[in-house]
Amino acid sequence: MSIANFRADLGDIPVEDRPRLVQQRSRDHYWYSPILKEKLENVTAEIVVSPRSVEEVKTVLAAAYRHNVAITPRGAGTGNYGQAMPLAGGAMLNLMNMDKVLEIKPDRVRAQAGAVMEHIDQQTRAAVGGELRFHPSTYRMASIGGFVAGGSAGVGSIRWAGLRAFGNILGLKVITCEETPRELDLVGKDILKVAHAYGTNGIIVEVEMPLTQSYDWVDVMVGFDDYLDACRFAEAVGHQDGLLVKEVAACAAPIPETYFTRHKTYVRPGQSAVLLMVAPVAVDAMMVFIDHHKGEVLYRSDTASEEERKRLPPIYELAWNHTTLRALKVDPTITYLQTRYPSVAHIKTIMDILGDELPMHVEVARQDGKVAFAGLPMVRYTSEERLEEIIRIHEENGCAVFNPHRYTLEEGGMKRTDRAQLDFKREADPLGILNPGKMIAWNDPDFDFESGRIWLFSGLAPAGA
Amino acid sequence: MSIANFRADLGDIPVEDRPRLVQQRSRDHYWYSPILKEKLENVTAEIVVSPRSVEEVKTVLAAAYRHNVAITPRGAGTGNYGQAMPLAGGAMLNLMNMDKVLEIKPDRVRAQAGAVMEHIDQQTRAAVGGELRFHPSTYRMASIGGFVAGGSAGVGSIRWAGLRAFGNILGLKVITCEETPRELDLVGKDILKVAHAYGTNGIIVEVEMPLTQSYDWVDVMVGFDDYLDACRFAEAVGHQDGLLVKEVAACAAPIPETYFTRHKTYVRPGQSAVLLMVAPVAVDAMMVFIDHHKGEVLYRSDTASEEERKRLPPIYELAWNHTTLRALKVDPTITYLQTRYPSVAHIKTIMDILGDELPMHVEVARQDGKVAFAGLPMVRYTSEERLEEIIRIHEENGCAVFNPHRYTLEEGGMKRTDRAQLDFKREADPLGILNPGKMIAWNDPDFDFESGRIWLFSGLAPAGA
Ligand SMILES: Cc1cc2nc3c(=O)[nH]c(=O)nc-3n(C[C@H](O)[C@H](O)[C@H](O)COP(=O)(O)OP(=O)(O)OC[C@H]3O[C@@H](n4cnc5c(N)ncnc54)[C@H](O)[C@@H]3O)c2cc1C
Ligand SMILES: Cc1cc2nc3c(=O)[nH]c(=O)nc-3n(C[C@H](O)[C@H](O)[C@H](O)COP(=O)(O)OP(=O)(O)OC[C@H]3O[C@@H](n4cnc5c(N)ncnc54)[C@H](O)[C@@H]3O)c2cc1C
Repeated sequence: MSIANFRADLGDIPVEDRPRLVQQRSRDHYWYSPILKEKLENVTAEIVVSPRSVEEVKTVLAAAYRHNVAITPRGAGTGNYGQAMPLAGGAMLNLMNMDKVLEIKPDRVRAQAGAVMEHIDQQTRAAVGGELRFHPSTYRMASIGGFVAGGSAGVGSIRWAGLRAFGNILGLKVITCEETPRELDLVGKDILKVAHAYGTNGIIVEVEMPLTQSYDWVDVMVGFDDYLDACRFAEAVGHQDGLLVKEVAACAAPIPETYFTRHKTYVRPGQSAVLLMVAPVAVDAMMVFIDHHKGEVLYRSDTASEEERKRLPPIYELAWNHTTLRALKVDPTITYLQTRYPSVAHIKTIMDILGDELPMHVEVARQDGKVAFAGLPMVRYTSEERLEEIIRIHEENGCAVFNPHRYTLEEGGMKRTDRAQLDFKREADPLGILNPGKMIAWNDPDFDFESGRIWLFSGLAPAGA
Repeated sequence: MSIANFRADLGDIPVEDRPRLVQQRSRDHYWYSPILKEKLENVTAEIVVSPRSVEEVKTVLAAAYRHNVAITPRGAGTGNYGQAMPLAGGAMLNLMNMDKVLEIKPDRVRAQAGAVMEHIDQQTRAAVGGELRFHPSTYRMASIGGFVAGGSAGVGSIRWAGLRAFGNILGLKVITCEETPRELDLVGKDILKVAHAYGTNGIIVEVEMPLTQSYDWVDVMVGFDDYLDACRFAEAVGHQDGLLVKEVAACAAPIPETYFTRHKTYVRPGQSAVLLMVAPVAVDAMMVFIDHHKGEVLYRSDTASEEERKRLPPIYELAWNHTTLRALKVDPTITYLQTRYPSVAHIKTIMDILGDELPMHVEVARQDGKVAFAGLPMVRYTSEERLEEIIRIHEENGCAVFNPHRYTLEEGGMKRTDRAQLDFKREADPLGILNPGKMIAWNDPDFDFESGRIWLFSGLAPAGA
């Protein structure tokens, strides 16, 4: 591997090699996890390359192949499992210069991988009154390519389930890392080979996504004295097929009063909050429904003053991983878990055992046609051992955990690496230099796809190993 | 009650009193049921009144109140429980002259009660690219007021659940039957007082409904050799949150080959069929999903010839109550039931017991946030006793039945009359002359709202009794 020779083959493609800047670009939001923070602190690439076109991406990948240089793709770097961190050094491939929206139709949009989701929506709203089905709470920063390669679900999942639910991605254009890189247009089942593969088996350069009708969503915050009532209400909203919502989350006290810095004036001490995004057409019915559940409307954006609306972040920036982010800003010892709670009773059990060590936060989302609690509870972190114990307590009580303190595809458990993904890597990245170290199955010939057990990857492997 | 005096008070409001025509207009699709057919055969009003404005409706209702004349509202008369039949004679109130679309916004439409649903959609599609969330399969004939007053669910319920799910109706303008009829604008919870009340407690003159994004839905018919595989596939489609569909139904052999007169050339003998309406944006993914379930695509409208598309009815006219209608045209002895099957295993149990006496047909629809099988099995009718036995067999095997062979609100079991509906009738119809005989609770002071049992109404009550 020779970075100098690699670089010499890049022509006028923009590069950056000042170590401080390269290290900055070698990081994502891995610091969400105290464990990853320790493990990945010193990881850095040697160079950042920022192609401006598909042709330039091909040039970069051909050069990487020739010189055996590890390539780690990067969108906005908002992933929070260290997915975009260059374990084997080499080059960061920054996609953010490829940010054009290519085509808008009434029911779909095609964009370059580096397009920021908020920018896509601005253009599709103006052109056809449509918007993306969902987005992560990092909507205003994250790239569509990074979401497809590294994300899972988000605002809109109450209606459309997860990103990888069939039909939620229409097409991907992927560049392979070979002597002569190829352009592959993946549709149908083939999309799943590359979605949520952390860029280990191809560089996504274009994404085609379905659009849905856009609304001026109304932010609503509802207060409950009892968090379990808040959960029951949130679940009931999810079951109301006629009430059009884009976001439903429930945050237990003391989260709202302590960490929602700008919204906390609306919250009484001890109050838990349900966060909603409601279509204007559903607001009247929602108010009746809130009343029926004895909730207290703490804030609604449609009747708020201009000044209030300017001062407050959108409510989705209190939800999903932003809930933890807000807490982290106040208390840097906080981290979180990703869980699944089969019922309100399960939430109660876990809260009874763990109390204030685990300030509870759940998202209500569809999964396989069912309304489910996707837990993102905060954890007042003390040690790795205790975190493992908290995970065990969850599992022993019938609550699955998808460990966000792991940087490999397999260990995160958000999606089992399947043979199709591995096979595709053999085809698209024969040298194994795309985001090396993130797919355990690549490195372990005895990998058991069926085990379903949580893998603990041993260390940082060199490129191509 | 004096029809002559009533008539004299109507001014130039159009009326019809030729007995043959009045009797025609006194009928709905009650003949779907051999039992109702016998019971209601001789029911007729004495006059049909066809107001053209809200003011004229008030004039009619004031005159009815003054002269104690029973008033039975009627849209297109496609209801099939005899709901629109004038048990106590008097006047039919024909709403079909009030058919204007009053206001279209991007997310909602307001129309007069007599507007035909297909006409509403034509206008909202042209104006804002929106369409009603759902419609009965009688879309091309039925009025929006008749649907709200007498319907339940339909094409679109796979996404939006039933008509009375909260948020699916935004507002109703209702005229009371008093000395001086009042105009009431019902919103929120109050809507449920009048929705599915068969017009017993107020005349709906305007309806406001939410719109959703319109599509050129693609009709798809999928063949399966085993009906239970068809059901499994249909349920799985319902669980795919990313696959946007408007209709999912499964019809067992020999229904497709025998009764789908114009589609049957696509069907092999013994084949069961799943009927789908798929958004264009979901068609590619659906084809993969069909293949995954080993279904056979028998017909798809997006690749059919112009000639084929002209020749064939839309696929929703093979679904919901149209499945039975198509069978009735071939074999007049056929009738049907309305059931709920908790699982495919329940469907199997019932089919094993009843065999060809009950050609199976299920609709897949959401209900309270869950995907469920709404059964509309056909019944090869022999006698009322046997029909009751088939109902009993269902109930004994854990499958609820909503008896479509009853013309009262309570007995149909589609919706329990609640106290709010009765209280509202006291207010809006103090004489009890609106569609008399359809609300048991009105006539029976001891009516037990909580019993939940199926009521068998004793006979035809005179107006105001
Ligand atoms: C506060 C906060 C809130 C969040 N909320 C959510 C949420 O609601 N839902 C959710 O799913 N995630 C969430 N995340 C995680 C993350 O923000 C999203 O998944 C986001 O979409 C990632 O986009 P990005 O452009 O930042 O990708 P990056 O972080 O740059 O990359 C993500 C992964 O994809 C790979 N990659 C990037 N671009 C490409 C490409 N073009 N081709 C191939 N591989 C590529 C990277 O190597 C990396 O493995 C959140 C994170 C934070 C910090
Ligand atoms: C082949 C076939 C298929 C069908 N499919 C479906 C289906 O998919 N889903 C479904 O829900 N139904 C279905 N139905 C039943 C019926 O077609 C629908 O409910 C339809 O919407 C009724 O509309 P209409 O205008 O024909 O009403 P009508 O039959 O005229 O009236 C229905 C009821 O409402 C009352 N009413 C009518 N207008 C008013 C008003 N303005 N104010 C107060 N009360 C009023 C009547 O008195 C009567 O009780 C079907 C029927 C048939 C025959």
